[in-house]
Amino acid sequence: MRRRAFMAAASGLALSSCGNLPAPRGTGDLGVVVARASGQLAVVDTTERRLLGRIDGLGDLSHASVVYARDGASAYVFGRDGAMTHVDVARQRILARVQQAGNSIGGAISQDGRLVAAQNYTPGGVKVFDARTLAQVADIPATYIAADGSTQRSRVVGLADLPGSRFIFSLFDAGEIWIADLSDAKQPRITKFAGVGRQPYDALVTPDGRHYIAGLFGQDGLAHIDLWEREPRVRRILPGYGRGETPLPVYKMPHLRGWAVAGREAWLPAIGRHEVLVVDTLTWQEVARVPVAGQPVFVMARPDGRQVWVNFAVPDYDNVQVIDTVTKQVVRTLQPGKAVLHMEFTPRGEAVWISSRDADRVTVVDTASFATLAQLPVPQPSGIFFSARAGRIGL
Amino acid sequence: MRRRAFMAAASGLALSSCGNLPAPRGTGDLGVVVARASGQLAVVDTTERRLLGRIDGLGDLSHASVVYARDGASAYVFGRDGAMTHVDVARQRILARVQQAGNSIGGAISQDGRLVAAQNYTPGGVKVFDARTLAQVADIPATYIAADGSTQRSRVVGLADLPGSRFIFSLFDAGEIWIADLSDAKQPRITKFAGVGRQPYDALVTPDGRHYIAGLFGQDGLAHIDLWEREPRVRRILPGYGRGETPLPVYKMPHLRGWAVAGREAWLPAIGRHEVLVVDTLTWQEVARVPVAGQPVFVMARPDGRQVWVNFAVPDYDNVQVIDTVTKQVVRTLQPGKAVLHMEFTPRGEAVWISSRDADRVTVVDTASFATLAQLPVPQPSGIFFSARAGRIGL
Repeated sequence: MRRRAFMAAASGLALSSCGNLPAPRGTGDLGVVVARASGQLAVVDTTERRLLGRIDGLGDLSHASVVYARDGASAYVFGRDGAMTHVDVARQRILARVQQAGNSIGGAISQDGRLVAAQNYTPGGVKVFDARTLAQVADIPATYIAADGSTQRSRVVGLADLPGSRFIFSLFDAGEIWIADLSDAKQPRITKFAGVGRQPYDALVTPDGRHYIAGLFGQDGLAHIDLWEREPRVRRILPGYGRGETPLPVYKMPHLRGWAVAGREAWLPAIGRHEVLVVDTLTWQEVARVPVAGQPVFVMARPDGRQVWVNFAVPDYDNVQVIDTVTKQVVRTLQPGKAVLHMEFTPRGEAVWISSRDADRVTVVDTASFATLAQLPVPQPSGIFFSARAGRIGL
Repeated sequence: MRRRAFMAAASGLALSSCGNLPAPRGTGDLGVVVARASGQLAVVDTTERRLLGRIDGLGDLSHASVVYARDGASAYVFGRDGAMTHVDVARQRILARVQQAGNSIGGAISQDGRLVAAQNYTPGGVKVFDARTLAQVADIPATYIAADGSTQRSRVVGLADLPGSRFIFSLFDAGEIWIADLSDAKQPRITKFAGVGRQPYDALVTPDGRHYIAGLFGQDGLAHIDLWEREPRVRRILPGYGRGETPLPVYKMPHLRGWAVAGREAWLPAIGRHEVLVVDTLTWQEVARVPVAGQPVFVMARPDGRQVWVNFAVPDYDNVQVIDTVTKQVVRTLQPGKAVLHMEFTPRGEAVWISSRDADRVTVVDTASFATLAQLPVPQPSGIFFSARAGRIGL
């Protein structure tokens, strides 16, 4: 501590205000909610908890995903129909729209915000664009040699940004994981991991960018790469994870992107079981199971990691459960409205926004008191994406 | 994975742009640099890496700190002279200015962004204000019974936000730590921890809001509270940490706010030694020491935790060193300009901004290649604060 002579004490509140100028409007508290049926985004303000407007004309938004530009004012919407739309969130309008593929399953933005990538089913591969102009800067066909010796293109899933101008993704049909380094965007350098397992169907990068984990549709277990190793390689983890041990019919494959990492533990949805699994991220061994009210779909950590929130597949999808990560107990069950599809926490986690598709509304819940803070009318809402994602790795 | 009929393949890039509307200006990539000598803030854009303008008339900015409003457009500047100024970062002007104390040492903003708190030396205590209007909503005098039986007011340090409308802070003169719960702002509920150790001089909250750690000026060791315990209590950790084992004169007490938490390890400056200490955050035991080029002041983790960057006290303060957290080795030594006072990472960590006071410049360095990306002229720069702090706990 610097020891300075104390200045003369000021008693009470001495106002020397410069007048009450209107406060500016920032973009750090903006968000969008996908209104799937109407092909719209609802734009929301998470401070006032209200709707600011809508953006129309976005096409097929089933399974749509959204990534934010580095400054948080605009976002890139990846539609299932292969269109990528750059939207002005702050002013609710479309800036540019590109039909970049026939069938697409999401996108990512590079660490420095200069490149946007889309992962495509048809034609199978990844396309990379200048984030500012949407000019295509690289086309990475996901080619592989099929069992019959022919060259095929694989559907691509599990795309995420990595530190550096890199993207990582999985080839569903080829059973491979690729890393594309776009430091020189015109000459992408590809690192391929072959034989990672049958049919990787989704994947995630941990919030520190260290671990990439892909779920396998065609066999049990998960494919894991520790990207901090000197020579990263694929390992199989959680060999019992998957369909082989399933005691119940699987209504929906859970989203891996919904995995929660809280402290040193990862929380993930069991497949076909009414359980959430807890895994130690040092050993990647299962350390606990928590019984829940249905087959989990998204298992999401509050930003501080103290709570994990879970939604469920049919027929239990009207419920949301909250797990205390210290006691590993369900501490609350909520019914915010029929058909809960997605949840998103505010950046510092004081509230969570929940989409209830069949109730045509988004509910804002206080994560400390579980009180309902607001309900907003949005037609058939699904994914919710807040602008603070711009500052996070792997989202 | 949903199995849908694939849509007709689109070959190549079919542009259906809606025209090139100008992109909006977001606030997610804004920042300020304290220009101490001139009482100014330099406003910067971390995407274009350039100066956007300056905000004048902020008074005594030695040891100034800055917290951001929830939307990232404005910020609160806490000057050493007891003034708190609400500045419009986006448009570079002062919105309001309050002389709230005679001598102040920083501030914090509540998790929901509705309350701003200042920690004061004179008069000793914490004052809480409505973030929008700057109206005072609570005054919390830091009173204690002195050795002579008289009631005194303590200087307050180590103020940080906690989840909920809570603030935590340390009483330097009283040797206490208090938590103020402002859920009902007019009736703050205070929880006091007494006898935490002699003269807590600075403190931090870990990024998950779980641990509060205060440095002790008057004795060895650190005071630690695990706030997730059912009944939190103060423990002494790292009993050898401090002045008692100091082999060298201490030129400057290191900033605890500069502590880095990377994965499960905390990285902290040794006092009076040319070392950085590594501590396991599960056991709070020291697990390693890394030799460095001087007495460390700030020890800061890149957001992904893969690197820790260190600056130093006089006479080694022209250096910056980078430690690889996996190998625990110094991997680079940089000399970005004389008298390095502070560093701030971009939200996803691709770059770090470094203040060199005596070179009158801020240097932007690529954290992967260590290349200099930009140099910006700022007179006697010190603290750097980016708007992404609005979304983080404990900053």
